[in-house]
Amino acid sequence: MAEASSRIMVAVNESSIKGYPNPSISSKGAFEWTIEKIVRHNVTAFDLLFLHVQVPDEDGFDDMDSIYASPEDFKHLNQRNRISGAHLLEYFVNRCHEIGVRCQAWTKLGDPKEVICHEVKRVQPDFLVVGSRGLGPFQKVFVGTVSEFCVKHCECPVITIKRKANETPQDPIDD
Amino acid sequence: MAEASSRIMVAVNESSIKGYPNPSISSKGAFEWTIEKIVRHNVTAFDLLFLHVQVPDEDGFDDMDSIYASPEDFKHLNQRNRISGAHLLEYFVNRCHEIGVRCQAWTKLGDPKEVICHEVKRVQPDFLVVGSRGLGPFQKVFVGTVSEFCVKHCECPVITIKRKANETPQDPIDD
Repeated sequence: MAEASSRIMVAVNESSIKGYPNPSISSKGAFEWTIEKIVRHNVTAFDLLFLHVQVPDEDGFDDMDSIYASPEDFKHLNQRNRISGAHLLEYFVNRCHEIGVRCQAWTKLGDPKEVICHEVKRVQPDFLVVGSRGLGPFQKVFVGTVSEFCVKHCECPVITIKRKANETPQDPIDD
Repeated sequence: MAEASSRIMVAVNESSIKGYPNPSISSKGAFEWTIEKIVRHNVTAFDLLFLHVQVPDEDGFDDMDSIYASPEDFKHLNQRNRISGAHLLEYFVNRCHEIGVRCQAWTKLGDPKEVICHEVKRVQPDFLVVGSRGLGPFQKVFVGTVSEFCVKHCECPVITIKRKANETPQDPIDD
C-alpha cells in the first residue's frame, strides 16, 4: 500500500459565549475526537488542515490566505491578522504541535457552508470533520446547520461530531 | 493518552446485481476507504465490527447472533448460516485477515436502518461507516436511503462513503 498520509480537514469556528478568539465547544470537540479516535494511533500518518470561515462584517477587510503551520507563525500577528481569525487558529496549531501532528491552518471570508464546500473542492482532503451543536428540529429552523449542508454537498466524506450533552450550554444555540 | 483501540462499525450489505453472497459495490467501497484512509496507518490500533442486516423474507428463519472473527469460523457453514448472510461476512473477515486487522462480524434480521441504529446503541462503536449509492433526490424518493437515516439517528458519529462515479452501474439503483 502507498505510504501517503491521510489529509483530514477540520472546519472550526469561534465561541459565541466566551467570545473571540476562543474556539467553540463543538469545534474543540470535533478536533479532540479526531485526535483521540483516529490520529493518535499514528500521528505521523495524518495531516490536519484547519479551515476557519469568517462571516464578513462591517469592518470590510479583504479576503486573506495566510497559512499557519507552527506556533512560530503566530508570533508577529498584527491587528489585521487578529481580526481575521488567526488567534482562533493558533489554538489548534498549538495543540497539534504539542501532540506532534503536522498541520496547516487558514482563514477564508464568506458564508461558512459555501466556503467549506468550495475549499474541499480546492484542497481535496480525504475527509472533512465538522462539529455540530446537535440542535433539535425546532431550533434548526432558526439557525440552520452548516454540518448538514456539508454532509449533503461537500465532495468528500464528512463526519459530524455532535457536542456532548454535558457540554451543552443553558441555551443550546450558544456554543 | 489511553491505548485502547478505536472501534469502527461498518454496515455491509449484498450486491443487487451480482447476487448473493457478493458484497455491494458501496459496502466494498466503504470498507476499502476505511482501510486505506484510516486503518492501514496502524492496523493494530483499530477493531472493525461488521454488521450485516438482512431483511426478513418468506423463509421465516429466526434472528441469529453468530459472530465471526477469523476465516476459520466460516469452515463449517450449514444451509442456515448461508441463508443468514455468513458468506457475505466471510468476504470482509478474509480481507481483514489478509491486512492483519482485528475484526468481528455478525448478522441481524430486520429493517436495516432501525437495526443499525439499535446495534450502535448496544455495541457503542467509536464511529460508524456506511456506504451510499449517491442517488439523486428523484431516485431517493423511491428507495429511501439507509445512510441518511443513520447520520440523523445513530448515537455515534457516522461517515458516509459515496460510491465512485466510475463504479456506478447503468441503473444507479443497482449496487
